[in-house]
Amino acid sequence: MYNCIICRYHEIATKGSNRGMFERCLAENVRHLLKTLPDAKVSRVRGRVRVELEGKRVFTPEELELVKTQLSKCFGLESFSPAVITPVDMERIRPPAVELAASALAGRPGKTSFRVRARRSNKRVPLSSKEIEIDLVTAVAERTGAEKFTIDLNRAEITLGCEVRDEFAVIYMENFPAPGGLPVGCNPRVLTLLSGGIDSPVAAWMIMKRGSPCDFLTFHSAPYTPPETLEKVRRLASKLNEFQLHGALCAANLSELQKAVRDNCKERYRTVLYRRAMMRIAAMTAERRRCHALVTGESLGQVASQTVPNMYAIGKAVDMLILRPLVGCDKLETIRLAEEIGTYEISNVQVPDSCTVFAPSAPCTTSEPDLLEQEERKIDGYWQILEKIAANVEEWT
Amino acid sequence: MYNCIICRYHEIATKGSNRGMFERCLAENVRHLLKTLPDAKVSRVRGRVRVELEGKRVFTPEELELVKTQLSKCFGLESFSPAVITPVDMERIRPPAVELAASALAGRPGKTSFRVRARRSNKRVPLSSKEIEIDLVTAVAERTGAEKFTIDLNRAEITLGCEVRDEFAVIYMENFPAPGGLPVGCNPRVLTLLSGGIDSPVAAWMIMKRGSPCDFLTFHSAPYTPPETLEKVRRLASKLNEFQLHGALCAANLSELQKAVRDNCKERYRTVLYRRAMMRIAAMTAERRRCHALVTGESLGQVASQTVPNMYAIGKAVDMLILRPLVGCDKLETIRLAEEIGTYEISNVQVPDSCTVFAPSAPCTTSEPDLLEQEERKIDGYWQILEKIAANVEEWT
Repeated sequence: MYNCIICRYHEIATKGSNRGMFERCLAENVRHLLKTLPDAKVSRVRGRVRVELEGKRVFTPEELELVKTQLSKCFGLESFSPAVITPVDMERIRPPAVELAASALAGRPGKTSFRVRARRSNKRVPLSSKEIEIDLVTAVAERTGAEKFTIDLNRAEITLGCEVRDEFAVIYMENFPAPGGLPVGCNPRVLTLLSGGIDSPVAAWMIMKRGSPCDFLTFHSAPYTPPETLEKVRRLASKLNEFQLHGALCAANLSELQKAVRDNCKERYRTVLYRRAMMRIAAMTAERRRCHALVTGESLGQVASQTVPNMYAIGKAVDMLILRPLVGCDKLETIRLAEEIGTYEISNVQVPDSCTVFAPSAPCTTSEPDLLEQEERKIDGYWQILEKIAANVEEWT
Repeated sequence: MYNCIICRYHEIATKGSNRGMFERCLAENVRHLLKTLPDAKVSRVRGRVRVELEGKRVFTPEELELVKTQLSKCFGLESFSPAVITPVDMERIRPPAVELAASALAGRPGKTSFRVRARRSNKRVPLSSKEIEIDLVTAVAERTGAEKFTIDLNRAEITLGCEVRDEFAVIYMENFPAPGGLPVGCNPRVLTLLSGGIDSPVAAWMIMKRGSPCDFLTFHSAPYTPPETLEKVRRLASKLNEFQLHGALCAANLSELQKAVRDNCKERYRTVLYRRAMMRIAAMTAERRRCHALVTGESLGQVASQTVPNMYAIGKAVDMLILRPLVGCDKLETIRLAEEIGTYEISNVQVPDSCTVFAPSAPCTTSEPDLLEQEERKIDGYWQILEKIAANVEEWT
């Protein structure tokens, strides 16, 4: 009997003058996630986003399942509830409220703990929240018999929710969690360096959750890496795109640069020299695609290229903001998040990646930018190689 | 009867050739945290850190409480257990194992679910892990009577742990969690910009957890901010110092720069101009104190100064690595962590802070470095003001 989905947000509610922009962006994301429900109408109502179907028709069970799956991926939302929408009138609120509560109670054997939670933002309604709660509990008891439930205000097995707003009221039984954060699109587009590993997909997800849509750039080293290297990243990007309107996946072939580094530079610097080249190609790609920052999965001290001096030397290669959302995270925490997002099982398949091609046996943990520039100058046409790789970046849309 | 604490680690175990450095650093941290137990001896044993008291004496209940409080703050540790240490000999292992298990079972009414978890890293012991478990369960049943417990291998109420290692065995009943991460000191020292807010103490904690000791720099604007501004930060730094050997708290008075900005620059740029000045003073202070990176509590999109363009413009003011561990975190997640760490209740006291002095009514969200430099050039002696502030930075040790 649900004819509405009521969606709640948190962080947006703390925004000042540009709150309208955040709300519009959130509504657009909800619309996109529910695009397979062509008659869904998404509207902004003070402090909430509301979804209804054409002609206020009731959602089918399949449609409700779809809504649950999709809105649980909607950044910016805190929670959402399938609901019955009614006019602001207790005579109209009471019947569906009793219906919902009675059928939930009927589904349980014996006495069940129960409560009503009312919230009234419309102060013209003559009843207070407390009075609405008493009104509805009384009506439910009349229908089911008072012996069917005990009231428990703290931890009831069944909660009937009722929100009385300015122009409508909603009644609901369930409150599903959504991921929080800010709606994707309220911050500028960024470019994530996406490898096949566990970390970079989680980094992309965290930055998307802060409102920035992500494009993805991955590096391969064909023919030294197999086609599976790219296929794995393509699956990761497609999983991440479930959380945003669209992010393009771009691929760059680093092998020519890697050969030049192998043939001209000190072995111990190889990893850091690769990373500096990747950042530069990423910055060129970002500029072309109007991405305003780079995102990496780096975590302080996790591997040799992620020490303080090496992160400094790698970051100094480009004049662009670098976002490293995992810099203070433990591997175990990152793995837990990857499992939640659904990228872990994809990342966990072992496939050779670009970073390991000609990898040194003992990578340097404390490189200096000046020394690295010296090494780079040993390569004839270093910048031409980078520009050629960047110009040949391939995009899958 | 516990005469040993056995400490386990996780991420360090994945380190290659420099694993010894990580282990030494971890042992040093354990030693520091237990410095009020003057006869504690901390030693590294393949894959574990062990704490014993002089003459292998038994820990008193007060000493065990102290150990629990202190080691729960030890970065690099995954978990620890008060234990009985014995030679590698079942005849010596069995009596204390039975003693521990029997007294735990005696403390519970009726039948209790119970299991033994054995681990054997010493392959010269003739019994397998499974055989050790059966041996000990049998011995416990002989003492308590088999009717005192049921075996539950998955979720027992009481677990007896037994580790048989090369040179000793340990028996324990409890496994306390520690925060994980890397031991403080295995990465270079950094400087955290510490305000009285909720975010920056959490940022410092996360970076300490990745192994970098933190010094702290805070900004005040005396006489425009009251002495309470500094007192609050002093309490925050002292809470954070519980997790590391020592971090100095430095304070800089920004008011002269703030007046110059107020009198010479466009109002809407004030916040970003303050932040650029803070970063520059922080970089000067960091160099003087041999800190190798700056840490901030910035979170993407949280406030006007934390948009992508503003973070870029602020970061560009200095030539130093900036670590922003909260860049991908939601406010609610940060608050949860602050509560766990114990900084939330300190941060949550409302005291004026430096950032709000002469704060603009409508701060700019998309500043350009070039424009900001123009604004800075409007201030006569801009760099002299910064250098004077940096030279007058006061340190509390």
